[in-house]
Amino acid sequence: MKTKLKNELLHSCAWQERKTVVFMSDFGSSDGAVSAMHGVANAVSNQLRLSDLTHEIPQFNIWEASYRLMQAMTYWAAGTVFVCVVDPGVGSNRKSVVALTASGHLVVTPDNGTLTHIAEHVGILEAREISEETNRLAGSQRSYTFHGRDVYAYTGARLASSLVNFEDIGPALSKQVRLKLEKGRLEGEHTLVGAIDILDTRYGSLWTNISDEFLEQLHIPFGSMMQVTISKDGRVVYGYPVKLCKGFTEVGKGEPLIYVNSLLNLGLALNQGSFASTYGIGTGEGWKITFSVV
Amino acid sequence: MKTKLKNELLHSCAWQERKTVVFMSDFGSSDGAVSAMHGVANAVSNQLRLSDLTHEIPQFNIWEASYRLMQAMTYWAAGTVFVCVVDPGVGSNRKSVVALTASGHLVVTPDNGTLTHIAEHVGILEAREISEETNRLAGSQRSYTFHGRDVYAYTGARLASSLVNFEDIGPALSKQVRLKLEKGRLEGEHTLVGAIDILDTRYGSLWTNISDEFLEQLHIPFGSMMQVTISKDGRVVYGYPVKLCKGFTEVGKGEPLIYVNSLLNLGLALNQGSFASTYGIGTGEGWKITFSVV
Amino acid sequence: MKTKLKNELLHSCAWQERKTVVFMSDFGSSDGAVSAMHGVANAVSNQLRLSDLTHEIPQFNIWEASYRLMQAMTYWAAGTVFVCVVDPGVGSNRKSVVALTASGHLVVTPDNGTLTHIAEHVGILEAREISEETNRLAGSQRSYTFHGRDVYAYTGARLASSLVNFEDIGPALSKQVRLKLEKGRLEGEHTLVGAIDILDTRYGSLWTNISDEFLEQLHIPFGSMMQVTISKDGRVVYGYPVKLCKGFTEVGKGEPLIYVNSLLNLGLALNQGSFASTYGIGTGEGWKITFSVV
Repeated sequence: MKTKLKNELLHSCAWQERKTVVFMSDFGSSDGAVSAMHGVANAVSNQLRLSDLTHEIPQFNIWEASYRLMQAMTYWAAGTVFVCVVDPGVGSNRKSVVALTASGHLVVTPDNGTLTHIAEHVGILEAREISEETNRLAGSQRSYTFHGRDVYAYTGARLASSLVNFEDIGPALSKQVRLKLEKGRLEGEHTLVGAIDILDTRYGSLWTNISDEFLEQLHIPFGSMMQVTISKDGRVVYGYPVKLCKGFTEVGKGEPLIYVNSLLNLGLALNQGSFASTYGIGTGEGWKITFSVV
Repeated sequence: MKTKLKNELLHSCAWQERKTVVFMSDFGSSDGAVSAMHGVANAVSNQLRLSDLTHEIPQFNIWEASYRLMQAMTYWAAGTVFVCVVDPGVGSNRKSVVALTASGHLVVTPDNGTLTHIAEHVGILEAREISEETNRLAGSQRSYTFHGRDVYAYTGARLASSLVNFEDIGPALSKQVRLKLEKGRLEGEHTLVGAIDILDTRYGSLWTNISDEFLEQLHIPFGSMMQVTISKDGRVVYGYPVKLCKGFTEVGKGEPLIYVNSLLNLGLALNQGSFASTYGIGTGEGWKITFSVV
Repeated sequence: MKTKLKNELLHSCAWQERKTVVFMSDFGSSDGAVSAMHGVANAVSNQLRLSDLTHEIPQFNIWEASYRLMQAMTYWAAGTVFVCVVDPGVGSNRKSVVALTASGHLVVTPDNGTLTHIAEHVGILEAREISEETNRLAGSQRSYTFHGRDVYAYTGARLASSLVNFEDIGPALSKQVRLKLEKGRLEGEHTLVGAIDILDTRYGSLWTNISDEFLEQLHIPFGSMMQVTISKDGRVVYGYPVKLCKGFTEVGKGEPLIYVNSLLNLGLALNQGSFASTYGIGTGEGWKITFSVV
């Protein structure tokens, strides 16, 4: 059945008509690296749409790359190819991979954990290790340090324009590298527990991995107060009751609120302020957040 | 006659052929929010051109969003749709609106003042309140806080690709929210008065809302000296004679000059320096600038 | 023969089919200036691909603009038009130019040195001075300070869409402004000498203008140690033996390495650190770097 789904995704009409490559990296936008990748993709086919997810991933931060990919990917049409280059291991023997997701997207990336959130929340149907001898820009054999341009952009553009088939990229790769990822969950009858997945960087809000479906399950209406506790390695950093709101303006300027973010998970914010910088909150391993019915 | 103009703008061939959506926000470019908006628009129609005005509007700064929209909009072909999301009131009962400008552009935005400069300098033929029940990405009903993606990007793309007509967006909205905007003017026979509309952020120059047509009216040739006075809430911050120049290199490095900016208004700059940071000048309400013939 | 090559480049089929304009400037991305340029180009022809190399060139830094152009240009298809606007002399009598490169690209730019690296490393077949009276956006005659939009974006888009021919842009310009550029070279039998062309801004690595072909010529294998000396105006700033590596992970975190960068020149880096900020290294005139066989 997985094979049937895979074949449908790879050979549907929609797939043939869609021709978009979306790029993500930690390159920043002040030099010519991103443009070189676009140029390589355009030279493969000038009919492709070329778009950028972000190139402001903090340097070598694979966790954030993995998260940002999940945040945007599913809003793009099936068949869209993502080229994700956060690659501290460039030049080492880390593998390169193309993953076909259950949503019908392709991700071209170093095999270093970038696929973690996608694997957890969307699912990966099949992955192929890229044979770099054949899937490489002509004339780039002596360049060891810019696989983003020479291998990933080139291969992504060739996949998007059907100049190479997914199955011809290289041998199947049954296991890919994964980062450790804690699940959001209900503990006991009244307490939601989870991780702080990411900061909304512009506003400084905390985005948890706790689904808003738990609110319905526990019959917690908007307008309720919940006790919020945030700890780092077991030490409590924040502990106050906060109101669950539909919109930021339901509390005064500078006051905290719990809200449902655009991914339908619980978020924690200050109205027109930065929760993260006000209280010194971070993301990733060691941070824990709980919401309890008062 | 307004109706005739409106119909011409909405139903001309040019309108049908142009398919561009231009995005502006205060989201920054470090997360996946902008890409999610592009993805939604691309999924509506993969034939659209998707472009970005800027996503670096200072957080919640509606004045600057309004100004930047005016700065770029008229250089785009008639029929181009602008999606502008600076939205401190997301989740409140603020309305959403699509405006048809006298220049034949459409602006999709929260009704919070973003249309101020456009209304003053270009003119708005008609505005429609967006009925959010019908003009919303399928499956996004439970997301309250990302109207930029779920309502504005989706609606903008559907307007640009003629999947929905302007008049079917929702009921006409006769009055929209406006920010207070002082006009540039001539006082007496020798003094030009106005506001500091914006800083040229990269170079730190001051852009006023005083048209260069006053120079012709007062017969002031390039090369003249003018007395410039800048005050904040009535307190004088800067008062010196400055030369009116065609180009920056007509004065020495670090010296001040008056020039006609790319919008044909008077500007004030230091050659290869920042006037704003050197003298501590800001923009918006309370700031006043005058130019007097010496 | 130069004429034959020029005619082939200008009239080949590939040229007619490619329709891309790539923009570069020191405008930043926080105001509407870049979008106004895109709008002008789109209004010339809505069939063009519009792309950005970078708009984060440090203000008025022509050297870096010249370098970044070389870094990305050749990865784009022949026929691509580059619009490069780093223009401290706007409003002065500096000329405007379109250059046809030996690689079949067109560069539209102020004649202020932006073409330096291209001329040295790629070659310029012919340059034309832009006649600004005829090659200018209608209605922009009174705007003296935004040639990027009114002349360069407009002319670049008309060249890319074949609405104007290269030879009709204006008279041939036999000499263009050049910055001083030192060549990478072998001194004696064991020492490579060159300049620090640029910093890899995100990672802080040094990129020299010394080709990796010297390594083969001197039979220096990967894994070798070389004595690296960096001086500024004759004063030694850094002097240590460093390992020549294929990948960053061949040395420990924070340790230095010599590598071959994506342009196939020698680079100097700290694994997961910034060489430039750690040792206070800069670029351009006065800086000299040598690599000696130990």
